[in-house]
Amino acid sequence: MSFNTFGRLFRFTSFGESHGAAIGCVVDGCPPRIPITAEEIQVELDKRRPGQSRFTTQRQEPDAVKILSGVFIDETTGKPVTTGTPIALLIENVDQRSKDYSDIKDKYRPGHAGYTYDVKYGIHDYRGGGRASARETAMRVAAGAIARKIVPGMVVRAALVQMGPHKIDRSRWDWNEIGNNPFFCPDPVQAKFYESYLDDIRKAGSSIGAVIEVVAEGVPAGLGAPVYGKLDADLASALMGINAVKGVEIGDGFATAELRGEDNADEMRMGNEGKPRFLSNHAGGILGGISTGQTIVARFAVKPTSSILTPRKTVDRYGNDTEIMTKGRHDPCVGIRGVPVGEAMVACVIADHYLMHRAQVGGGVPWPFEKR
Amino acid sequence: MSFNTFGRLFRFTSFGESHGAAIGCVVDGCPPRIPITAEEIQVELDKRRPGQSRFTTQRQEPDAVKILSGVFIDETTGKPVTTGTPIALLIENVDQRSKDYSDIKDKYRPGHAGYTYDVKYGIHDYRGGGRASARETAMRVAAGAIARKIVPGMVVRAALVQMGPHKIDRSRWDWNEIGNNPFFCPDPVQAKFYESYLDDIRKAGSSIGAVIEVVAEGVPAGLGAPVYGKLDADLASALMGINAVKGVEIGDGFATAELRGEDNADEMRMGNEGKPRFLSNHAGGILGGISTGQTIVARFAVKPTSSILTPRKTVDRYGNDTEIMTKGRHDPCVGIRGVPVGEAMVACVIADHYLMHRAQVGGGVPWPFEKR
Amino acid sequence: MSFNTFGRLFRFTSFGESHGAAIGCVVDGCPPRIPITAEEIQVELDKRRPGQSRFTTQRQEPDAVKILSGVFIDETTGKPVTTGTPIALLIENVDQRSKDYSDIKDKYRPGHAGYTYDVKYGIHDYRGGGRASARETAMRVAAGAIARKIVPGMVVRAALVQMGPHKIDRSRWDWNEIGNNPFFCPDPVQAKFYESYLDDIRKAGSSIGAVIEVVAEGVPAGLGAPVYGKLDADLASALMGINAVKGVEIGDGFATAELRGEDNADEMRMGNEGKPRFLSNHAGGILGGISTGQTIVARFAVKPTSSILTPRKTVDRYGNDTEIMTKGRHDPCVGIRGVPVGEAMVACVIADHYLMHRAQVGGGVPWPFEKR
Amino acid sequence: MSFNTFGRLFRFTSFGESHGAAIGCVVDGCPPRIPITAEEIQVELDKRRPGQSRFTTQRQEPDAVKILSGVFIDETTGKPVTTGTPIALLIENVDQRSKDYSDIKDKYRPGHAGYTYDVKYGIHDYRGGGRASARETAMRVAAGAIARKIVPGMVVRAALVQMGPHKIDRSRWDWNEIGNNPFFCPDPVQAKFYESYLDDIRKAGSSIGAVIEVVAEGVPAGLGAPVYGKLDADLASALMGINAVKGVEIGDGFATAELRGEDNADEMRMGNEGKPRFLSNHAGGILGGISTGQTIVARFAVKPTSSILTPRKTVDRYGNDTEIMTKGRHDPCVGIRGVPVGEAMVACVIADHYLMHRAQVGGGVPWPFEKR
Repeated sequence: MSFNTFGRLFRFTSFGESHGAAIGCVVDGCPPRIPITAEEIQVELDKRRPGQSRFTTQRQEPDAVKILSGVFIDETTGKPVTTGTPIALLIENVDQRSKDYSDIKDKYRPGHAGYTYDVKYGIHDYRGGGRASARETAMRVAAGAIARKIVPGMVVRAALVQMGPHKIDRSRWDWNEIGNNPFFCPDPVQAKFYESYLDDIRKAGSSIGAVIEVVAEGVPAGLGAPVYGKLDADLASALMGINAVKGVEIGDGFATAELRGEDNADEMRMGNEGKPRFLSNHAGGILGGISTGQTIVARFAVKPTSSILTPRKTVDRYGNDTEIMTKGRHDPCVGIRGVPVGEAMVACVIADHYLMHRAQVGGGVPWPFEKR
Repeated sequence: MSFNTFGRLFRFTSFGESHGAAIGCVVDGCPPRIPITAEEIQVELDKRRPGQSRFTTQRQEPDAVKILSGVFIDETTGKPVTTGTPIALLIENVDQRSKDYSDIKDKYRPGHAGYTYDVKYGIHDYRGGGRASARETAMRVAAGAIARKIVPGMVVRAALVQMGPHKIDRSRWDWNEIGNNPFFCPDPVQAKFYESYLDDIRKAGSSIGAVIEVVAEGVPAGLGAPVYGKLDADLASALMGINAVKGVEIGDGFATAELRGEDNADEMRMGNEGKPRFLSNHAGGILGGISTGQTIVARFAVKPTSSILTPRKTVDRYGNDTEIMTKGRHDPCVGIRGVPVGEAMVACVIADHYLMHRAQVGGGVPWPFEKR
Repeated sequence: MSFNTFGRLFRFTSFGESHGAAIGCVVDGCPPRIPITAEEIQVELDKRRPGQSRFTTQRQEPDAVKILSGVFIDETTGKPVTTGTPIALLIENVDQRSKDYSDIKDKYRPGHAGYTYDVKYGIHDYRGGGRASARETAMRVAAGAIARKIVPGMVVRAALVQMGPHKIDRSRWDWNEIGNNPFFCPDPVQAKFYESYLDDIRKAGSSIGAVIEVVAEGVPAGLGAPVYGKLDADLASALMGINAVKGVEIGDGFATAELRGEDNADEMRMGNEGKPRFLSNHAGGILGGISTGQTIVARFAVKPTSSILTPRKTVDRYGNDTEIMTKGRHDPCVGIRGVPVGEAMVACVIADHYLMHRAQVGGGVPWPFEKR
Repeated sequence: MSFNTFGRLFRFTSFGESHGAAIGCVVDGCPPRIPITAEEIQVELDKRRPGQSRFTTQRQEPDAVKILSGVFIDETTGKPVTTGTPIALLIENVDQRSKDYSDIKDKYRPGHAGYTYDVKYGIHDYRGGGRASARETAMRVAAGAIARKIVPGMVVRAALVQMGPHKIDRSRWDWNEIGNNPFFCPDPVQAKFYESYLDDIRKAGSSIGAVIEVVAEGVPAGLGAPVYGKLDADLASALMGINAVKGVEIGDGFATAELRGEDNADEMRMGNEGKPRFLSNHAGGILGGISTGQTIVARFAVKPTSSILTPRKTVDRYGNDTEIMTKGRHDPCVGIRGVPVGEAMVACVIADHYLMHRAQVGGGVPWPFEKR
């Protein structure tokens, strides 16, 4: 059971509401003696921190993370390392505006979790989205910063590949461009276009959806577990569980529905170092729920931010018809900040499977086999 | 940890290889005193049983299920009911052709799990796909037959809505047509077309992908759990975990990436019996990971069957380049048989969340609230 | 997997080292709308707080608990209640003496976890016992304070029933005496004796073991789950997992080994309100892993505190033979402070099973049955 | 959640009722390429098989185990090995006497689970104890036979060390004697006495309790996990979960309550091969929940068989006072058959922790450390 715990062996349990005292998480199951500092985690957190451009919510939170436990000085190196005990991370909420919620606290915002929380629990913290706020995803990014260090050689990156109906041109894909625009967009031409496109949407008080692609390189073959611990099933869960996500695909994804078998097959040839080389990667690096050693590719669709300036019909918690219009600070394209969150979730899933594989199979299998 | 166990409270653990002695599963956590017979489970199993039309594999397995435990005669009614103890289901494998595997047992079929199993475990049962065979999904269907009985009033149905690039016409959707064609297709016109379309593909020794839509009606509001036990995240995992699935979406799914906030919002009005009425269902019945009481809608993409008659480049387990061509009995569109499997997985996920919700919240919450 | 998480549905994850920045826990799965305040939790914490008599360690920690999340004002009553989301509890460490550890940090104290942590993880926080410190048990008591509120009518109490070889006289058992002596001893005569007895041990720089008995009244029949979720198995795990515990028994426990079948049987007669009445309680309220509705009785043995003034032979982390003598602040009978911890763990286990039972069986079973 | 599943990474799920069609289990998470045959499992099963002497129930079951899945021929050796997929084991019930249950099926046997199952589930299979029958423990022994092969060098053995009030003389302990008497007793003198002692009890239609000691040698240091995955807590759960067990202790157990700190400390000296040598083993091989590398010692108390010839007062399922006397086939000392079950459970727990340790720490830690 894991209401608020993610993962199996590499696990984290998050807590906190958007406008409560603090948000935080406890990372458990992390291998010992991994060098880690709060500064390194902060670097990742800063990627998703709001208020960095006019395209993300103007809420100003330093989001300064503190490590409360689980890290100790390694006498050999004099540097802080994990100890194998739980690593508690805490971010105090400092920008909790004591604003007046009286005009919206009883009304359900369409697309938000207010109604479902109320009908489930009979109560919910309505301030800033409460537990359902995207603010919780900061802790996923923090946990992901630790996860990244577990699998040797793994690099997980993500990019925004579509905003509204406008896809990037993949022939212009350049990872170096990710940091050059406020969209984590690898296509500099399309990024330029997104700027004016999203400005119009923002000014209209509207919002727009997006598609994010996560790419994990350096993932060893053999991670994943048939049949109910499949790597792709876990990735799907991890990505669909991010706020506002409505679709997930691996490799060619929905496009495979249109393919014939001979076009979808990833043919193999022997490559270097005794490893096979695949002539294509329609599968996105996963076969039978287990990594092939190829690059793992996943995409997810993020719906448009539900909080918009256009008034919408709704009901209140006392059963009355009413209307709502969300003022306040919001992202015109919440998918943008989903980029570092998607990276983090994929890193956590792979780290978890890395440990699970090590548990069951130990040092691994010498492939190819020797014919007797 | 759940390598071969699905679910949290309503759980099933499956076992067995395609050409081993038997396949089976153990359903655990089922509420007691639910009427169930092997015949009822068999009805569901027969839906996915191969060999029923020329469009599914000609393997002939009666797939007769036996209940080994967990069911006992209720003295009050004289009928068999669950006892709350584990329900073991067994299907003996009777059509295990003792065919000669010598020409393919060492070669990896592109798109199949042979290589990944070998590189993970150092061994795999190559006969008929072994553990990775779609035959395992029979147990999902069997478990689903029990899950369907747990949530009062719930009806879970699925349909094939796309084959290759050819989508159905939703204006012609008629659930009654599902049983009138070998594709579980609700559009009789398109079903007619699929017949000739798939015949051509089959005769060419090729295969094609498909998209399946699962619809769950009668699901109470409030099921699901933030933030790492979300109903949609669990559905995504359940559907992505089905063999050959490469994409999953909830409600409008990937299409939401193209929507503006005002078009994506599901507005609300008070409806009958003190429940809200939603004016649309872009969300697919789930908000914040919790069911809204609307119909739950999920779709998944199934890649084309990997086993085709066209020779493909591959390697063998000893590291040699070679070619492979799959003869034998196979489905030209494995998505067809994914329909009852998708239904079953969705039923299992919702039953599981029904029990989880009952655990945490008990008898439920009276909504709307009374203003004090 | 639950390295640092206790429970299945009612769960808590603890973190923190004795001399780190803070200790804390995240309670998850708690039903919503349960009234709770930090003050109520503090009342329980104060029971195990050190420094309250000369018989517990003189470490002075206010151990003031803060609620960081999961509690919100119920509009109907104006009082704080649980919201169903994770409840994070934090205690900052304020008495972290910056003492000099240089003479002991490399030496293993016999009976302590220093060696096993080092050989497992390759590193450990040696300050004050680090993660293995009994200080962690404060979080169990805090979680237990919440658990107590989940099962209606349940009262869990514990008492010290043996110190060294000296057992209490059960004929003098008076729960009201528990608060009248620093030992949680229900026998006032023996408590008087323990005072001088333990004073001698304390002055000699030695320590002594103890036996604690936990009694849970008002536990409904039917909690527990065969065969690997038995209530008694979970109690055994919960109590054995408390620091320094070496034995656990339920009901007559080890004494049943000496009994004949006819002496051990708890005979039944019909009692009031359609419930059976048991004529004895050798079983300690549990049969077949499920509660009978009788009082649940468990006992656990606590070894003497390992930190003593007598020098002991040991080795250091570099593989050298050496000697160690523990100065510093320690409990002469650590079993005393185990009393509130034992109560808390039993409360957590029963609350967990209460939710699990509600999940599987819902509103319960009308017993006795009607003959048709 | 694990109603009928034991373990975390090395897991087994058991099913079946005493007089149903079959009992069985599914072992999951087992490392691949471990040689195993049904015959090897049968050897362990035969140890607990009833009907082998006049001191165990005369029920005659061949208890022949079949492997249904998860084992395949290793091409290199030509021998069957595990494949990493679930290993299903099945024992068909062949001695299900179609006896007349009408005189006992509605009455609760004191000490049995009939009442608790009924009050929990509203139904139970009353034939031969149903799910609560000790027959289920056969599957624990079967799973244990596989677990034994996972930890290199581990040997787990158990012995009966007390019957009724009569303890063995430990100075006469000889493992070779275990097979020379029907009690698994290592003291040949006391075994002789037990024979006449138990004969008298058996002839009187009575029964008696016992204490079993399990000893695990060759367990590497470092297994176990603070603070809620402690090795001793898991052992306690595993042993308390065996039918009829009422107490568990590790190392000196309850006797430590009477000890002073200086007498309980296990002093250390450097030993061979860079490992420490402990000068005693009061701790039973576990400190802080983690194995020390010493022999692990656990004991458990088994209550007398509840089924006896003496009539006992009870009630029936319709709420009437009545009497019951158990005829049929029963063990006068059910503790005897608990010996192989205790061994198996300890083997499973240690195998599980071996995999968990490998997951988190990988190849292990070089101890002693080098001083920089």
